[in-house]
Amino acid sequence: MQRRSLVLLLALSACLLIAAAPDEGMYPISEILKLDLRAKGLKIDPKEIYNPEGVSLIDGIVQVGGCTGSFVSAQGLILTNHHCAYGATQAASTTEHDYIKNGFLARNGGEEIPAKGYTVRITDSYRDVSAEVLSAVNDTMDLAERSKAIEMKIKAIVAATEEEQPGKRAEVSEMFIGKSYVLFVYTNLKDVRLVYVPPRSIGEFGGEEDNWVWPRHTGDFSFLRAYVAPDGSPAEYSPSNVPYSPRKFLKVAPQGANEEDFVFILGYPGSTFRHRTSHYLAFEKEVRMPFVADWNAWQIATMQELGKHDRSVALKHASRSKSLANVMKNYRGKLQGLRRLELVEKKRLEEQALQNYIDGDPVRQKTYGSVLAEIDKVYQEMRSQAERELILTNLQSSSTMLRFGNAIYEGTQELQKPDLERQSAYMERNLNATKQSLKQAAQNYYEPTDRTFLRELLLRAAQLPEDQKIPAVAALLKESTPEKSIEKFLNSAYAKSKLYEEAFLLETLAQKPEQVAKLKDPFVEFARTLHPTYKALRETQRRRDGALNKLYAQLADIKQLFMATDFIPDANRTLRLTFGRVRGYRPADAVYYHPVTTLKGVIEKTTGAEPFDTPQKLVELYHAKDFGQFKLPQANEVPVALLYNLDTTGGNSGSAVLNANGEIVGVNFDRAFEATINDYAWSEDYSRSIAVDIRYVLWVTQKFAGAQYLLDEMNVRSGVEN
Amino acid sequence: MQRRSLVLLLALSACLLIAAAPDEGMYPISEILKLDLRAKGLKIDPKEIYNPEGVSLIDGIVQVGGCTGSFVSAQGLILTNHHCAYGATQAASTTEHDYIKNGFLARNGGEEIPAKGYTVRITDSYRDVSAEVLSAVNDTMDLAERSKAIEMKIKAIVAATEEEQPGKRAEVSEMFIGKSYVLFVYTNLKDVRLVYVPPRSIGEFGGEEDNWVWPRHTGDFSFLRAYVAPDGSPAEYSPSNVPYSPRKFLKVAPQGANEEDFVFILGYPGSTFRHRTSHYLAFEKEVRMPFVADWNAWQIATMQELGKHDRSVALKHASRSKSLANVMKNYRGKLQGLRRLELVEKKRLEEQALQNYIDGDPVRQKTYGSVLAEIDKVYQEMRSQAERELILTNLQSSSTMLRFGNAIYEGTQELQKPDLERQSAYMERNLNATKQSLKQAAQNYYEPTDRTFLRELLLRAAQLPEDQKIPAVAALLKESTPEKSIEKFLNSAYAKSKLYEEAFLLETLAQKPEQVAKLKDPFVEFARTLHPTYKALRETQRRRDGALNKLYAQLADIKQLFMATDFIPDANRTLRLTFGRVRGYRPADAVYYHPVTTLKGVIEKTTGAEPFDTPQKLVELYHAKDFGQFKLPQANEVPVALLYNLDTTGGNSGSAVLNANGEIVGVNFDRAFEATINDYAWSEDYSRSIAVDIRYVLWVTQKFAGAQYLLDEMNVRSGVEN
Repeated sequence: MQRRSLVLLLALSACLLIAAAPDEGMYPISEILKLDLRAKGLKIDPKEIYNPEGVSLIDGIVQVGGCTGSFVSAQGLILTNHHCAYGATQAASTTEHDYIKNGFLARNGGEEIPAKGYTVRITDSYRDVSAEVLSAVNDTMDLAERSKAIEMKIKAIVAATEEEQPGKRAEVSEMFIGKSYVLFVYTNLKDVRLVYVPPRSIGEFGGEEDNWVWPRHTGDFSFLRAYVAPDGSPAEYSPSNVPYSPRKFLKVAPQGANEEDFVFILGYPGSTFRHRTSHYLAFEKEVRMPFVADWNAWQIATMQELGKHDRSVALKHASRSKSLANVMKNYRGKLQGLRRLELVEKKRLEEQALQNYIDGDPVRQKTYGSVLAEIDKVYQEMRSQAERELILTNLQSSSTMLRFGNAIYEGTQELQKPDLERQSAYMERNLNATKQSLKQAAQNYYEPTDRTFLRELLLRAAQLPEDQKIPAVAALLKESTPEKSIEKFLNSAYAKSKLYEEAFLLETLAQKPEQVAKLKDPFVEFARTLHPTYKALRETQRRRDGALNKLYAQLADIKQLFMATDFIPDANRTLRLTFGRVRGYRPADAVYYHPVTTLKGVIEKTTGAEPFDTPQKLVELYHAKDFGQFKLPQANEVPVALLYNLDTTGGNSGSAVLNANGEIVGVNFDRAFEATINDYAWSEDYSRSIAVDIRYVLWVTQKFAGAQYLLDEMNVRSGVEN
Repeated sequence: MQRRSLVLLLALSACLLIAAAPDEGMYPISEILKLDLRAKGLKIDPKEIYNPEGVSLIDGIVQVGGCTGSFVSAQGLILTNHHCAYGATQAASTTEHDYIKNGFLARNGGEEIPAKGYTVRITDSYRDVSAEVLSAVNDTMDLAERSKAIEMKIKAIVAATEEEQPGKRAEVSEMFIGKSYVLFVYTNLKDVRLVYVPPRSIGEFGGEEDNWVWPRHTGDFSFLRAYVAPDGSPAEYSPSNVPYSPRKFLKVAPQGANEEDFVFILGYPGSTFRHRTSHYLAFEKEVRMPFVADWNAWQIATMQELGKHDRSVALKHASRSKSLANVMKNYRGKLQGLRRLELVEKKRLEEQALQNYIDGDPVRQKTYGSVLAEIDKVYQEMRSQAERELILTNLQSSSTMLRFGNAIYEGTQELQKPDLERQSAYMERNLNATKQSLKQAAQNYYEPTDRTFLRELLLRAAQLPEDQKIPAVAALLKESTPEKSIEKFLNSAYAKSKLYEEAFLLETLAQKPEQVAKLKDPFVEFARTLHPTYKALRETQRRRDGALNKLYAQLADIKQLFMATDFIPDANRTLRLTFGRVRGYRPADAVYYHPVTTLKGVIEKTTGAEPFDTPQKLVELYHAKDFGQFKLPQANEVPVALLYNLDTTGGNSGSAVLNANGEIVGVNFDRAFEATINDYAWSEDYSRSIAVDIRYVLWVTQKFAGAQYLLDEMNVRSGVEN
């Protein structure tokens, strides 16, 4: 093939790749009216979804418990996931009242209990602040300065806005890296209460085993309620508070959805990385994700081994093990997706086509000619340092004692600085959350595990090449072998330090650095000797971020020119719309997944042992075929979960899945294993998200929990639908 | 419900349950002509399958390497599974020529190499010997005597037949327990050679992970050739031998099979337990299989842990770990199937109906009234002793050293007896195999593993209830705790014994019992003290077998009266026919499995790491779409594996899957996970068996191996089929 036709072919493939995904997209709400949603299947006026001048569905959407939720009644009733209410349910549980195990039902408003630490956040307003943010930078700044300047400017805008509008919470979201920024203003409702939470054996049915899995049979839903002061203003919990009246609440659709129905989601997806280059993807695929997946697997296996004879130790490990497993499974899904979809190779083709376009014009060549090469250079540098940097990062997260040592050493210094200059974790607005997290870590501390993790990482650090040695670790190696040196250090450090005592830890954090120095705590001292390395690493990362920041902005510019169209920005925890169809898929050769699961499947999976321990009452309702109006049209079965080709990612948990009339047909809570690839690319073949079917929500609430009053409150009329 | 209508309903359900499975059945060849196979889809005369007076397809079927195989050319070429030729391939491999890894291809007859230790067995004749066998028993015998008498009579018939027909191998198969017996006479061809064996990465693709799994992508096939002396008689290997000319060889069908095509299998299924009662199934489900599955899981985990830092130890564990995992996965599949199909409950209903029928007539009542209750009693006794007996059984199989101790203690005594009176393992005809197996065990011995297994079982034995104590174990418990006593015993026993030395072990086996006693080997001594317990256990088992033997015979009689029809006997390694359709299934709620997999799926599963390390050449052929004539009619893909609802079990490995014209469309090699339940019941929902598609066999042989001459030998004409 001649060079010229190859170039043409490359350009063509790149365009085809981009054009091949008509339903892809996490559209910012500002884009909603530009989409021809009625042609796609929507039956209501798009202005009913988003209307800057009036009331729309968006006013019924909230953020709660790190998730999305929807108002579903005029009395502030909120429908979200079980796992989004988990923290509050756990906090409300006692040995006597185990609401995680047995579920919680308030039979009336008076029985509702506070969802401790929960707030309900409503989007009040937003505006573009790109010009203001970028006014802080100029072309003479080096890259680290540039990053720092943007960071400081954003902090200042947030502080000013929150001062102007007391009680509101402000946040600036980067829409395109280094290019555009939007200020969001939120109202936080602080009195949130538990209304109905099904037992774990329904709400978490399948547990870790079914996580990221379709076919799914989890009743991952719960009901909360938001309260305000009698005058309607946000207020802390008080018995005299009244249910909040939302500007808008969403209707539930008791008839549910069928295969190929049009559906859409409004939610707050977390992060995607679709505008990153092949160099980034290759780094993730070949270096970072395999390291983290393997390291997590090793940590999980170690915790299982150390906890196998002691239930109390196993319980301390439970939540950490779960979150490590979650990341591990997610990464393994992504690695499979990267391989199957050949994403790195496709990105390379696209970039080759883009480079050819750039090189085809001297002016373009001058401005953008080296952008891709320079991005490559940054990731090459990251590759060469990856082992060392991954060890350093994991040292802080995997060893609780070292994490405490760091928190004390850095925290006591940060707390001496003016608020705006502190690291984010120690700013007044975040300090409580930081303390809470330290407390939690102290409660779950188990020395043998901590010691095993720290030993392993120190041994790996000791094996780094000469020019990458970590001085603080090298300083420990005084004995005949690294093993002996490290063992000696661990023996003395774990014998001496008291940081694992919760009270002592928090007292120490409140002390001045000079007082702390006198303690001679071995982990604080180790953190002190490690500090220059971490400081240098932070500088390095800031420099890289600065460089990438500028380079990705340039890349976005030239891509826009090349493709002559606008981009959808990567997900960044701001409100987005995604739409598509209820649809099955083929996850592998000779396998087809149907998009609706049923109660029959719950029974099929039920073994009686956690996490497949369906409550007896549910089993009896199944055998009695007591399905009421919540059946499939074509079979005497209750639908349980729903699958659709929408474009979601982490943060979309709890989002209502809406039908063509804007009514709730499900509550989104997960993605299929193959759809973990969504972070890098949407694929019609593999991108499938999972909701609990509204019919299961209503059936469980009515028949299992006996809470007919909630169906009444949501205006579900009995028996008329099927 | 009134009692009478309940009885009617029970009787009705039992009949429905039995009648609902029209395609079920592993029919003895004597039944073939009674089936209306043409109405089921067969296009040839059933006499072409089975013809006692002439030549039929059955004459083209052989047993080889513990599997079934088919003659596919006039020159003795045999098509069977890769895993059936595994042992011979391994034996022929050297460090220089790793045929397991790289595969083996003889480019012509001269390059074929001996399949060491392999014989090809052809069924010569068979006749009913029930009367002869049962002539050895009478009604005055107690149950243990009865079992023993049948056993001795069978040994005598076999010996007489083999003496009468030198060179032939005779076997008596029990068709219905305690009721009917058939004598089979076989010819063994002893010169078998390897012709083509694909590399492990094709022939074992997916390995343990894909075992018992659909969708499957394993090229589990190989070609062997049988040779005879120039005069046509069976002979040991000799360069002057000539290819065997079979009376019949099977044609391959290069066009393959499509969904819903009629297919059938002639093969040697091992054992099924479909005529056992609910008491047996409940014992298996609740007691034996969970114990074994958990114990195997624990052993596998222990071996993984102990072998993780030492490849040579891991290799020693490999084959044992694989076979434990195979059983574990099989049992877990069965346990799932028993639960899903509610088999115990259904059997109980059937038995209730049968009991009602018996009780409905005073004569029947008198003869058969207590049969079910007495069977129940035997299994109740087994339940009460299960923990103890499972520990005793596993002591001998899990600890290699104790196994050696037992072999020496018992073997040296058995070898003093006349051949016919010995335990089967020490009879002259089996002695070589027994020695071979001991050698293998010595080669794979690893002390830390053996010690861990033995310690665990001794600890469990120490915890048995007072009235079930094992005296030999109780005698060890002299220290303050069982742990200390057992540790002390293990320390001294493993320090002293030399039985793990292969040569010493075999020398010792050849000694007289008196000499052995002088050795004072701790494991032989332990075996000696355990011996009375094992002897008593064997007596107990013989008594139970005797009881069940008689009871199951009575049960078969009354069931035949009740149902007014003949039964298909349980599988017993004799030649059977099963027929049905190429058909997918729904293994779980919302999942459908298509019955044909493709090369695309091989590529999809390929990770580059074992067992998913497809050879580069195969990947290249895929990308070049170099599929020749072996494509699916509806897609540009090579089919790899085939799924069908035939009734198979272990022992059907290597059987040809034949189409309506009696031509080979696949080589059977496994069942789907859900079909492990076949041992207890056939189910249209779940019973699915797996073949490598003949098109994949031919494509790999032609395109990957470049062995066009084999296609020519099988009369596959190029390019005319698709």
